[in-house]
Amino acid sequence: MLKTGFLPEETRQKLHTVIYEADTRAGKLFDIILLCVILISIVAVMLESVASIKIVYGHELAVIEWVITILFTLEYIARVVSVREPLRYIFSFYGFVDLLATLPKYVGLLFPGSGFLIAVRAVRLLRVFRILKLTHFVGASNQLLAALRKSQVKIAVFLFSVIVLCIIMGTLMYMIEGPESGFTSIPTSIYWTIVTLTTVGFGDITPITPLGQLMSMVIMIMGYGIIAVPTGLVTAQFMAETPHLNTQACPNCGANQHRDDAKFCYNCGAGLTK
Amino acid sequence: MLKTGFLPEETRQKLHTVIYEADTRAGKLFDIILLCVILISIVAVMLESVASIKIVYGHELAVIEWVITILFTLEYIARVVSVREPLRYIFSFYGFVDLLATLPKYVGLLFPGSGFLIAVRAVRLLRVFRILKLTHFVGASNQLLAALRKSQVKIAVFLFSVIVLCIIMGTLMYMIEGPESGFTSIPTSIYWTIVTLTTVGFGDITPITPLGQLMSMVIMIMGYGIIAVPTGLVTAQFMAETPHLNTQACPNCGANQHRDDAKFCYNCGAGLTK
Amino acid sequence: MLKTGFLPEETRQKLHTVIYEADTRAGKLFDIILLCVILISIVAVMLESVASIKIVYGHELAVIEWVITILFTLEYIARVVSVREPLRYIFSFYGFVDLLATLPKYVGLLFPGSGFLIAVRAVRLLRVFRILKLTHFVGASNQLLAALRKSQVKIAVFLFSVIVLCIIMGTLMYMIEGPESGFTSIPTSIYWTIVTLTTVGFGDITPITPLGQLMSMVIMIMGYGIIAVPTGLVTAQFMAETPHLNTQACPNCGANQHRDDAKFCYNCGAGLTK
Amino acid sequence: MLKTGFLPEETRQKLHTVIYEADTRAGKLFDIILLCVILISIVAVMLESVASIKIVYGHELAVIEWVITILFTLEYIARVVSVREPLRYIFSFYGFVDLLATLPKYVGLLFPGSGFLIAVRAVRLLRVFRILKLTHFVGASNQLLAALRKSQVKIAVFLFSVIVLCIIMGTLMYMIEGPESGFTSIPTSIYWTIVTLTTVGFGDITPITPLGQLMSMVIMIMGYGIIAVPTGLVTAQFMAETPHLNTQACPNCGANQHRDDAKFCYNCGAGLTK
Repeated sequence: MLKTGFLPEETRQKLHTVIYEADTRAGKLFDIILLCVILISIVAVMLESVASIKIVYGHELAVIEWVITILFTLEYIARVVSVREPLRYIFSFYGFVDLLATLPKYVGLLFPGSGFLIAVRAVRLLRVFRILKLTHFVGASNQLLAALRKSQVKIAVFLFSVIVLCIIMGTLMYMIEGPESGFTSIPTSIYWTIVTLTTVGFGDITPITPLGQLMSMVIMIMGYGIIAVPTGLVTAQFMAETPHLNTQACPNCGANQHRDDAKFCYNCGAGLTK
Repeated sequence: MLKTGFLPEETRQKLHTVIYEADTRAGKLFDIILLCVILISIVAVMLESVASIKIVYGHELAVIEWVITILFTLEYIARVVSVREPLRYIFSFYGFVDLLATLPKYVGLLFPGSGFLIAVRAVRLLRVFRILKLTHFVGASNQLLAALRKSQVKIAVFLFSVIVLCIIMGTLMYMIEGPESGFTSIPTSIYWTIVTLTTVGFGDITPITPLGQLMSMVIMIMGYGIIAVPTGLVTAQFMAETPHLNTQACPNCGANQHRDDAKFCYNCGAGLTK
Repeated sequence: MLKTGFLPEETRQKLHTVIYEADTRAGKLFDIILLCVILISIVAVMLESVASIKIVYGHELAVIEWVITILFTLEYIARVVSVREPLRYIFSFYGFVDLLATLPKYVGLLFPGSGFLIAVRAVRLLRVFRILKLTHFVGASNQLLAALRKSQVKIAVFLFSVIVLCIIMGTLMYMIEGPESGFTSIPTSIYWTIVTLTTVGFGDITPITPLGQLMSMVIMIMGYGIIAVPTGLVTAQFMAETPHLNTQACPNCGANQHRDDAKFCYNCGAGLTK
Repeated sequence: MLKTGFLPEETRQKLHTVIYEADTRAGKLFDIILLCVILISIVAVMLESVASIKIVYGHELAVIEWVITILFTLEYIARVVSVREPLRYIFSFYGFVDLLATLPKYVGLLFPGSGFLIAVRAVRLLRVFRILKLTHFVGASNQLLAALRKSQVKIAVFLFSVIVLCIIMGTLMYMIEGPESGFTSIPTSIYWTIVTLTTVGFGDITPITPLGQLMSMVIMIMGYGIIAVPTGLVTAQFMAETPHLNTQACPNCGANQHRDDAKFCYNCGAGLTK
C-alpha cells in the first residue's frame, strides 16, 4: 500500500520532480526558496538565543519560528507523499533530519519544560547539504570524501594512538601537578592534555611546578610534530589519486609527459613501446 | 576627449614611463621613493594611534600626515593625466586604493567627527603590491595564486563544511554549557567553537561541565585532524604537473583522466572527440 | 628448567593458544574479555580521581579495583606459565607492562603512603595495543611507523634545532621582559617560548613591553612557518616509493641516487660495486 | 706574519687536528669534552636566573661560571693560534660566537651595571652546531636546508603577504574594537592579529563587540587555512628532490620501477629504449 504512495501516480511524479530534482525551473525555484527558508530559520534560532534581542524582538521571532515550522511540516508531508517508497524516505538519514527540523517545536508545545530542544533545530542546517548536492560542488566534495575514506584506517590508528597518549600523559600530569594547580582529577588532566597537544591552549589550567612545565613542553613539541602524520596521510592520499606523468617520449611524434600506464600516445595515437 | 588625456602626447608618455614602468632609472627611482613614502605613512598612522606617542609628537605626526597626503594627491593627479584612458584607471582596483590613500584626510577636514576614517589609510599598504609587481617576486606569487585558484572549489567545499560544523557544534555547546559558563548565546558559542576548532584557544570562554569538556575534546581533535584537508589540497595542487588531467572518458574504451590536450586515448589509441 | 615451563606441554600449549592467539573462538573471547576488563579498570582509575565521585562510590570503586587487580595477577601468572621461555616474557616490554598493571596495588598495601602510584595503573592502557596487534590495524600502523622511522634522523635534526632556537629566544625574552611580566627566570622564558612557537599560547604569561611583543610576533610567525618542515618530511616519506634511492655514486660516471637494490648504474650501465 | 700563525708549523698542525677535526681519538675526546662544558655552562646560566636557586647556590654557580669562562678563553686562544689564517677565523661567524661566549663575563667585571649581558652567554649553545657538524647529522640537515633555500622566494612572498594582511586586519580591528577591549593602539591590534592568525591565541586581548568577534572568526579561519601554503611549498620541495620511479620494464630482464631519467637498467645494465 505505502509502496504505491498516497497520490495518483501522475501528480506524485510532478511533485517529485519539483521537490527532488533541480533540472526544471520549478525544481530550481523550490531549492532556492528552501535554501532561503533554512538560512532565515537558522538566523532566527541564533538571534532568539541572544538575551538582549529576545527581549525586544521575542514576539516577532516566535511568529517567524511558527511560520517556518509550518512550512517545514508541509514540506515534510509533501516529501513523504511524493516518493514511491515513503517508509524508505522516513527512515533515511535526511528523513530523520527533516523530521527533526519540525518536531522540537511541537514537542515544546506539549511539554513546556523542554526548552533545551531549541538547539535541535540547528540540524536544519544539515539540509543545506542535500540542496547543494545538486550543484557542481558534488565532484569536489566526492573527491575529498574519497581521499578521506581511503586513509580512514590509518587515521583511526593515528587517532587511537593520540587518545591513548593523552590518557597516559594526562594521568602523569595529574600525578605531577595535583589539584592545587587546577589538575583536579584525571579526566580534567586528560582534557588539559588534549587542549595542549592539539595546540589549542586555552590557559584555563596551566602547569605551575617546574616538572609539570617540563612535561608540558614535551607534550607541546609532540603535538607540534605529530600533526604531520594526519597531514601527510591525507596529502599522500590526495596525490595518489592523480596518475603520474613520465618523461617518456612518443617514438612517432616525440610528445612527452605521458601517463605512467599509457599504452598509446595522447597526441598522435601511436603505440608506446615499453 | 578623456581618452586622449589632458597632456600633450609626448609629455604624457614620458610621465607614464616614470610612473608606471621600472625599466628606466627615473622609473626605478620613482618606485623606490614611493615605497619609502608609503612605509613612512604607515608607520606614522601606527604611531599616531599610540596614546603616549600622540601626546608628545602629535603635532609632528600631523605635519608628516599632511605632507604625505599632499604627495599622494599629486601622485594621484599625475597618474590620472598620464594614462591614455583616465576613467579606466580611476575605476580600476588600484585607482580606488590610490584614492582611498588620500581621501580620508580631506573628508576628516570637512566632517570633524569622522576620526574613524583614520584606519582607512592603512589601505595605502596595498599599494606596495603594485610596486613589487615590477620585481622578480611576480613569478613566485603567480605560482602561489595559480595553485590556490585551481583548488578553490575544493577549498570552498571544505570551508563551507567547517562553518556548518561550527554552527551545529556551537549550538550543541550552548545547550550543554549555558550562559553560566560564558556561552551566553548561540553566536557566542559559535565564536567559541571556531576559536577551538582552529586551535587558536583564547581562553576567554572555557567549558566547565564534564559533558562540555568532553565535547571540547572532540572539537579539538577534529580541528587538529581536519587541518590536514586544506594542507593536502594545496600541497597536491603545488605538485600537480602542468598538463592537467581531466575527467573526460574515452568513447571507445571508457578510460578517463586524460591530459587536457590529449587527442588520442592513452589506453586504446582511439581518437578523443572534444 | 624454566625453558620447559611449569605445566605439562599439552596443557601449556592449549593455554598459550587461548592467551596469545586470536584465531580460535576461545582466544578471541579471551581477548575481548581482557579488553573490557582493561577499559573498565581505566575508567575506574579515572573516576576514583574525581573527588565528588570518590566520596559517594569510593567503596565500590575499591572493590572493582581489587577484583581487577586479582584478575590481572591471575592473567600474569597464566602468561608466565604458558610460554616456553618465561624469563624472556618477564623481561620483555609487555612483561613489564603486565607486571606494572598489578604491582602498584600490592605496593600500596605494603607502604600506605605510596598513593602516588595510582597513576602507574594507567599503563594498563598500553596493553590494549597488544590485543589490537592481532587485528587488521597492524598493517596500517606498521606503515605509519615505518614512514616515521625512515625520516627519524631528519626529525631529530629538526627537533634539536627547534630546541636550540627556543633556548636562545627564551633567554632573549628574559632579557627583554624581565620578572615583572611573568618571565621570572630563563627556564620559565623557555617554557613560554615553546608555548608560543608551537602555537599553543596558554596566555598564563604574555609579553607587555613593545619590544617583547615584537619578538613574540617573530616567534609566532616562525612557529607558524616552520611547522611546514616536519609535515613536509613525513608527507614526503609517506609518498616515497618502496625501492629507496640511496646516496651511492657510480664509480664510472659519478651519477648518484641509485635504487637500493641496483646492480648497474642507471646512467651509464656500469656495474655498481657494493 | 699572521698568516703563518704564532706556533711552529708542526705544533700548530697537531693542535689543529685535535681542535678542528674529529677523526683522531684526541679530536673526538676534545669534541666530547667541549660539548659537556657547553651544556654545563648553559645549565648554569639557566639556574642562575632562577631566584630561589641563586640565593642558595649563587656562590657555586659563580665559581662554575668563572671556570667555564677561563676554559672557553683558553680554547679561543688555542683556536686562534692553531689556524693558518687567524684573522679569517676571528672574523668568521663561529669566531664571533666563540668570542661572545667569553667576553660578557669580562665586560661585566669592568662595568658592574652590565648584568643584562647574562643572556648573551646563551649564544654558547650555537657552538654545539659546529661540533655536531662532524657527525652523520650533516647529510640530513643539509637536505633540510637545501629544500628550504630553494623555496625561499615563495616563502618570502607568502610571509610578506601575511604581514600586510595582519597590518590591514589589525587596523580594522582597532577601528572596530577600540581601546576599551584592550585594542589600545594599532601596533597592539597588529600584535593581536598575529597572535590570532598564527592560531597561538594567548587570550590576553580578546574581542568583545559582535562585529569584532565576527572579524576574529574570519581571521581565525584564514589562519587555519593559509597554513597550508608554507606546508605545501616545503612538501613539494622535499619531494622534488627525489627522482620519480616509473613503471617502465627493462626490455632485457623485465625489472621495473626505473628512475624517470634512467638510460640503463639498474638490474642487468641493458640499455633502456625510450
